[in-house]
Amino acid sequence: MQIAMIQDKIVPTEELEPVYFDRGIFFGDGVYEVMRSYNGKIFALEEHLQRFAGSLSAIEIAGLDIDLIRSRILKAFDAAGIANAKIYFHITRGSEARDRIWNAGLKPNFFLTVSELGDNTKEKTKGIAVSTFPDWRWKRCDIKSLNLLANVLASNDAAKKGCGEAILVNEAGLITEGAGSAFFAILGQTLQTTPLTANILPSITREFAIKAGANIGLEVIEKSLTPQQAAGADELFLAVTTRDIVPVVRFDDKLIADGRPGKYTKLLAREFLSFTV
Amino acid sequence: MQIAMIQDKIVPTEELEPVYFDRGIFFGDGVYEVMRSYNGKIFALEEHLQRFAGSLSAIEIAGLDIDLIRSRILKAFDAAGIANAKIYFHITRGSEARDRIWNAGLKPNFFLTVSELGDNTKEKTKGIAVSTFPDWRWKRCDIKSLNLLANVLASNDAAKKGCGEAILVNEAGLITEGAGSAFFAILGQTLQTTPLTANILPSITREFAIKAGANIGLEVIEKSLTPQQAAGADELFLAVTTRDIVPVVRFDDKLIADGRPGKYTKLLAREFLSFTV
Repeated sequence: MQIAMIQDKIVPTEELEPVYFDRGIFFGDGVYEVMRSYNGKIFALEEHLQRFAGSLSAIEIAGLDIDLIRSRILKAFDAAGIANAKIYFHITRGSEARDRIWNAGLKPNFFLTVSELGDNTKEKTKGIAVSTFPDWRWKRCDIKSLNLLANVLASNDAAKKGCGEAILVNEAGLITEGAGSAFFAILGQTLQTTPLTANILPSITREFAIKAGANIGLEVIEKSLTPQQAAGADELFLAVTTRDIVPVVRFDDKLIADGRPGKYTKLLAREFLSFTV
Repeated sequence: MQIAMIQDKIVPTEELEPVYFDRGIFFGDGVYEVMRSYNGKIFALEEHLQRFAGSLSAIEIAGLDIDLIRSRILKAFDAAGIANAKIYFHITRGSEARDRIWNAGLKPNFFLTVSELGDNTKEKTKGIAVSTFPDWRWKRCDIKSLNLLANVLASNDAAKKGCGEAILVNEAGLITEGAGSAFFAILGQTLQTTPLTANILPSITREFAIKAGANIGLEVIEKSLTPQQAAGADELFLAVTTRDIVPVVRFDDKLIADGRPGKYTKLLAREFLSFTV
């Protein structure tokens, strides 16, 4: 006999929906993606699908057809009828009695939501403050996995400080990335960001931000920054799927330049948006 | 409008049970414990409850009464009527639309299972092989969180190699612990294990194993081992709540001593069991 208990209630396990035994909840044994649409058109759908396939493969969830996933996304997006939508989805290894050793025959669980994106015009025009937090994440941040507690703790620390993002600093004293964003500095006419080798997510928005930077004539350098270097930069910004390009006007206690979004950041953001139409 | 999709089916989000929106699945935003009973008596209940309270506090899940959790555990254990039971439980921050920033008013979710422990006499008498794997875990392994994908990947790598546990090796080339166990070496009359400062779980079974080692006259040293040192040890063993003391007779390709459980390990295991009655 095996029993379960939900809050104060004892329940025979066979009466529980499989979702209660999702390996996603027991272990974070799954991977996810977040995409958005602009005016009814999903941005960088194929790039996200390709990265998702890479995440699935990295954690050995096999046998999923990316064409099937694409068709589900399009079906749900269509049904939602939201022009500026946020599309979240994850696949977990499946549901079974909790055991680290997975059952090879398990059927993966797919879960997706489509919701309306909030308006973030204010943060894009005024800029945000950011605060630093230790990078406690695991060593495989190249995989977009459901193990996000370090990101959650960092994000909430930032929120408590009235900041719009946490900037993660590793044990070597170098900035890796934001808790949910890629992080960029502009120094002179140089656009600088962490290289992909530094245990960061291969962010798709990061790639488009780099392209936008090159298009407006900035020299791109992929090299980690210290918090001191970031605080002394001419301009700072974040790149996030759901928020686009967000100027950063304060870094911990330090105001960036005159505390207003910088000129290159504004140019770059405009260039970035041209990719989305 | 917000919609969800489960496998191929579109569902209005309001029709889904809150468990689908558990922060445990989105972020691994929760903590857990595993206990066991011996002949109808839960072993080290208070020690586990105390550690659980520490984990809750470390990730800022507040307002939970440990007395209430204890009473739930006892109620479920009683209802299950299993003499040698494995009791698993977790608490997540609660269910809400996915957002890294948590809602302070969220009601935590409690989930518990009681199941019968399998018989592991064979591994305890014959010993097991272990294999090394990179320690990819986050930097807060002192918190018993639901972010366990690194442990899952390591454990399954070991299983594929026919091994009973993965031994994690950090970037400095030092053993931290097993993917789901504390790891011990005996060299001469010295019992050696990783210090708690080295980003490992404050394992309760580890504490009892150390006590058992001291009781049988071994000198205890808390100092990290390299894989080379471990492979050359006189005896090796694991300490795990659900498996007790498990002799290790092969470390990667290297047989430990004559490939049979060592004499001190056997003495220590007997001493350990005396704590459980």
